[in-house]
Amino acid sequence: MEISGNPNLRLDDLQIKGYHIYQDPSRFCFGMDAVLLSEFAKVKKSEVALDLCTGNGIVPILLEAKTQGLHFSGLEIQEESANLAKASVEYNGLQNKVKIVTGDIKEAERYFDTASFHVVTVNPPYMVGNHGLRNDMDCKTIARHEVLCDLEDVVRCGARLLKGKGRFYMVHRPFRLVEIFTCMTKYNLEPKRIRFVHPYVDKEPNMVLIEGLKDGRSRVEIEPPLIVYNKDGSYTEELLRWYGKKVEV
Amino acid sequence: MEISGNPNLRLDDLQIKGYHIYQDPSRFCFGMDAVLLSEFAKVKKSEVALDLCTGNGIVPILLEAKTQGLHFSGLEIQEESANLAKASVEYNGLQNKVKIVTGDIKEAERYFDTASFHVVTVNPPYMVGNHGLRNDMDCKTIARHEVLCDLEDVVRCGARLLKGKGRFYMVHRPFRLVEIFTCMTKYNLEPKRIRFVHPYVDKEPNMVLIEGLKDGRSRVEIEPPLIVYNKDGSYTEELLRWYGKKVEV
Repeated sequence: MEISGNPNLRLDDLQIKGYHIYQDPSRFCFGMDAVLLSEFAKVKKSEVALDLCTGNGIVPILLEAKTQGLHFSGLEIQEESANLAKASVEYNGLQNKVKIVTGDIKEAERYFDTASFHVVTVNPPYMVGNHGLRNDMDCKTIARHEVLCDLEDVVRCGARLLKGKGRFYMVHRPFRLVEIFTCMTKYNLEPKRIRFVHPYVDKEPNMVLIEGLKDGRSRVEIEPPLIVYNKDGSYTEELLRWYGKKVEV
Repeated sequence: MEISGNPNLRLDDLQIKGYHIYQDPSRFCFGMDAVLLSEFAKVKKSEVALDLCTGNGIVPILLEAKTQGLHFSGLEIQEESANLAKASVEYNGLQNKVKIVTGDIKEAERYFDTASFHVVTVNPPYMVGNHGLRNDMDCKTIARHEVLCDLEDVVRCGARLLKGKGRFYMVHRPFRLVEIFTCMTKYNLEPKRIRFVHPYVDKEPNMVLIEGLKDGRSRVEIEPPLIVYNKDGSYTEELLRWYGKKVEV
């Protein structure tokens, strides 16, 4: 992988199965959203999963560590990020379990067969793209704003690549929930399970985790709120469990 | 009003402004959902409001007590319930502020002008109606199941009767949220504010409060969870505030 010679490069311990991940803080580091998505998503034994907008590959690598899935793919449009992901896959010796593809989700059928995945996950750009950002397309902007792909691209791609009754898992911003539901139902990915992530119990949520079922019928379960911090600013027990940390009693 | 001679009739103190309400437990008593709806809904000074599926008139009577709105109407299809509502309006001396109409929301334009309300509220039947209940249409079934009107009737009626930028407030069951969003956006009632009501902080919500804006643009705010009970089974401070109770410190 052509990642050497980057003075910003960092190799972080994922604290699971001894896995590590390459990150470049000048580009983009994975956040809590990716970790929560990897915990919210369920990949069952022998299933194959695809992560769209995979960035440095954090989601497929965590899913490989946490689930009994058979194989995990990741699709990333930015070559530098995809190369970091490939390097992390090699570093962890996961070449037979995780495959990173450099490419555009709008052309995903060039790389993957339609209706070939049991699970699709995605941590897409959250912000609507048309705010005059197009002259300033650095890699962080691309990861955060809908400049190279938008919500509909992500949902359409997921719907095409999922098998019937396949599951779609997305983390996004709550303020876009109406658009998200409208778009998902348009492509027959019925929202079935929703969990809001609140920084504190008395604050509005700043993330939402969504499970959709391809060709599912309309009935959604809203789960209990996931609270990140206790009043004293320490992490809640549940969040520590999601991070795979032992809870001190 | 023809309500005398009913041995089940009860006159309950609403604990606000000395108001009382007639209820017949063999028919239907108002629940926490109506109280929460009346607190979640905002009726500003000089605005006129309409409550659909008003039952015994609890929502317009509470809104008259709590807000500075100019006038409050209530529409109810079941004559016995509407008569109870009318009797409560008379009992409280609110004939100039609250008007109860007996009629079908599917024919609401027979009773009200289109685009004539600033606010529409509704606590509709929650359950999907087509479960073979049509031979057993007692008044509780009608209040709970979509036998005489469904979600789309309620939303369509609200959208027609609201002025531009008018507000629609509904309480419903969370499992129908996807349908609700789809239906509201179909009739240009954009969901703008959502609050889930959880019995306990670690339980899924059993009610959802929704504010829609006629001809609004797509951006929704999910509010902090409204928790009903503390761990010890006592009401939370916030719920007591919503019920207008003094909080003991």
